[in-house]
Amino acid sequence: MKTSDGLSRLRQKLERLRRQNLCLDMSRGKPEERQLDLSAPLLRMMDDGNFLAEGGVDVRNYGAYQGIPEARRLFGELLRLPPSQVLSGGNSSLNLISDALKRCYINGALPGDTPWCKLDQVRFICPAPGYDWHFHILETYHIEMLPVAMDAEGPDMEQVRRLAADPSVKGLICNPMYNNPTGITFSPRVVEDLAAMPTAAADFRLIWDHAYAVHHLYPDRRDQLADIYEACLRHGHADRVLMFASTSKITYAGAGIAALAGSPANIAWAEELIQYQLVCYDKVNQLRHVRFLPDLAAVEAHMKRHAAILRPKFELVLAILEQELGGSGLARWHAPLGGYFICLYTEDGCARRVNQLCQEAGVTLTPAGVCYPYGQDIKDNTIRIAPSYPSLEQLEQAMRILTLALKIVHAERREENGQHKEG
Amino acid sequence: MKTSDGLSRLRQKLERLRRQNLCLDMSRGKPEERQLDLSAPLLRMMDDGNFLAEGGVDVRNYGAYQGIPEARRLFGELLRLPPSQVLSGGNSSLNLISDALKRCYINGALPGDTPWCKLDQVRFICPAPGYDWHFHILETYHIEMLPVAMDAEGPDMEQVRRLAADPSVKGLICNPMYNNPTGITFSPRVVEDLAAMPTAAADFRLIWDHAYAVHHLYPDRRDQLADIYEACLRHGHADRVLMFASTSKITYAGAGIAALAGSPANIAWAEELIQYQLVCYDKVNQLRHVRFLPDLAAVEAHMKRHAAILRPKFELVLAILEQELGGSGLARWHAPLGGYFICLYTEDGCARRVNQLCQEAGVTLTPAGVCYPYGQDIKDNTIRIAPSYPSLEQLEQAMRILTLALKIVHAERREENGQHKEG
Repeated sequence: MKTSDGLSRLRQKLERLRRQNLCLDMSRGKPEERQLDLSAPLLRMMDDGNFLAEGGVDVRNYGAYQGIPEARRLFGELLRLPPSQVLSGGNSSLNLISDALKRCYINGALPGDTPWCKLDQVRFICPAPGYDWHFHILETYHIEMLPVAMDAEGPDMEQVRRLAADPSVKGLICNPMYNNPTGITFSPRVVEDLAAMPTAAADFRLIWDHAYAVHHLYPDRRDQLADIYEACLRHGHADRVLMFASTSKITYAGAGIAALAGSPANIAWAEELIQYQLVCYDKVNQLRHVRFLPDLAAVEAHMKRHAAILRPKFELVLAILEQELGGSGLARWHAPLGGYFICLYTEDGCARRVNQLCQEAGVTLTPAGVCYPYGQDIKDNTIRIAPSYPSLEQLEQAMRILTLALKIVHAERREENGQHKEG
Repeated sequence: MKTSDGLSRLRQKLERLRRQNLCLDMSRGKPEERQLDLSAPLLRMMDDGNFLAEGGVDVRNYGAYQGIPEARRLFGELLRLPPSQVLSGGNSSLNLISDALKRCYINGALPGDTPWCKLDQVRFICPAPGYDWHFHILETYHIEMLPVAMDAEGPDMEQVRRLAADPSVKGLICNPMYNNPTGITFSPRVVEDLAAMPTAAADFRLIWDHAYAVHHLYPDRRDQLADIYEACLRHGHADRVLMFASTSKITYAGAGIAALAGSPANIAWAEELIQYQLVCYDKVNQLRHVRFLPDLAAVEAHMKRHAAILRPKFELVLAILEQELGGSGLARWHAPLGGYFICLYTEDGCARRVNQLCQEAGVTLTPAGVCYPYGQDIKDNTIRIAPSYPSLEQLEQAMRILTLALKIVHAERREENGQHKEG
């Protein structure tokens, strides 16, 4: 077997790195320890022995299944809706998304609507690449996922509009801001179109997972997301959008508080069913949170401390990408202003092999394909980089390996093409 | 209108009490403040800044969707199953019940089983009187509820067996120990029969809400509940039972931790779907709890402190019932050895009117009928007394009013009968 000098040298380099027995994890958008430490005061917020929330409810006892007023107000500020249109739930916005789908399936999107479980087919529009857990949730409901391409403004609205004309298409699920994994924020035009477009299904739902609403990397350069509820309301589609948020990447991942927000009808319906589903959410954790972060200003100040930890990591990743791949044409990427991910697009047919080489060298990336419905990255070109969890030193090593792997895969392909020509 | 002297005197007495503008609440099984205060140390359990659970997971971050090992072990002790057969969830065992039904509806009881939403009809056996929230949950799933009488040993097993022979009957929901509201514990024979009986539906499920597993009132006199899982296993029905528990009435109501336990197949199925539903439960609260209550012995010691608060209330209720109604034949009741309720059976046709008179006099009872599916107490004879929340003084006033109301309703009926005879 003939091997070009370049490829051989690259492989030797990777082999040396592999011998270091590295164990680097860039697979998930997890906060690192210093970020978690930022919320240490959270755990002392009940030390005064005062357990009463506004309205006099003792948070240690049953009651207030809509969440305590303070928590509803905080999320209302975050999601730009009055507290009465916000339900503050448990520890997971994904769980609130799953519960919203459950209601659509079992009870109907609103009272009187046909439960989706009574329909032969339910489909969702899935801008892709997207968040793998969204796709997993849809799969557990047997919802057929229809991928739609993402560009710099968000989902390809021509495709979206065409699909929404099918009555079996019941919704669209997305991270509209600092999107997982592309890092882009839906443009005002896309937000407007999503609110305005006709949908064949009257009970069409936008699952608006506003996971990174305040997760800016820079104090002065920020994406702005247009107000989807205002736009829906203006177009007579107030019930179309269900908004979700959590503090999982503000305080603790999986031990924060979450919220659902939407039209009065959507919230009333959710409340009616949720009160029977669980009596109440954990209000002690709600009160703890609103004492630690009483309003949006406090949240913003807190997020600056997160940004101070995350920014150097994002900048390191981008610097190495530029240094190793800039101008090479081997890959393209976007420099996001917030969120948790950098999305690397390789040449078609490379992502899986790059992932494999990285894995062999001790770097765990998000498994190839998972950013697409059914794990099918048809072009095999998408690599999600999650810079938050590793240290800067680990991140540098991991990125050196990743870019090296990418170069190897390219050299392999060049060689293969050369052999084809020779053969 | 003719009024007997007795009735008139009773009514005057009630009128005097009414003028006190009382506001007494015996409607829900809520712990009182002193009980909540027992768990004050719980909130300081993270003060040492050690956030690592067994296995090294940082509870402030994502991961361990089955719950931390310590929490699974604790609930395993409580439910007599190995930790691998326990999933430690969020703050609410009701929510875990609702999620279990959701899986049956959307995904099938086990892989390969027909999802219940694809069936024309799904029915559940509902021992009644029973826990109103169980019935509410079933209603949200449109499950037809089939009431079955409760006696001193539990549900009437002849009725249960007959209903279970119908393939559309998919389960039975119950509090098997210190039952809400009857206070009785299912006898060994009933437990054995529930495990052994044939069911037409292969995916029949016992929703075993072990809400009061350690909620004894007396250190030396306790009900014992036979081991349902062991019995199911012995009869080749290991997958039949899904067990639920929480610390809502051990630590904080609605801010504790909860668990699901069952066969390896049931737990594996739940885990597979739950990991996509929510990433993970609140592990900080799990760790906080297991540090406060590391094992069953610690739980038992803690429950003795609850019992010291609750016991005098139960004894007061029973003493007043005996004093006011003993030997009168106007009502019958059971003296439970644990749990949160005393169930008063009046003569048929009286409960609603008693409830109404109490309400007018400022005493809120559990709304009449709610202990039955669809709120239909056909005999109109069941009053649920929840002694935990009011103070002893309030409880005495409330019980005086309740027993007085019962006497008035009786006198009214006697008089009515007299008028009928005269008419």
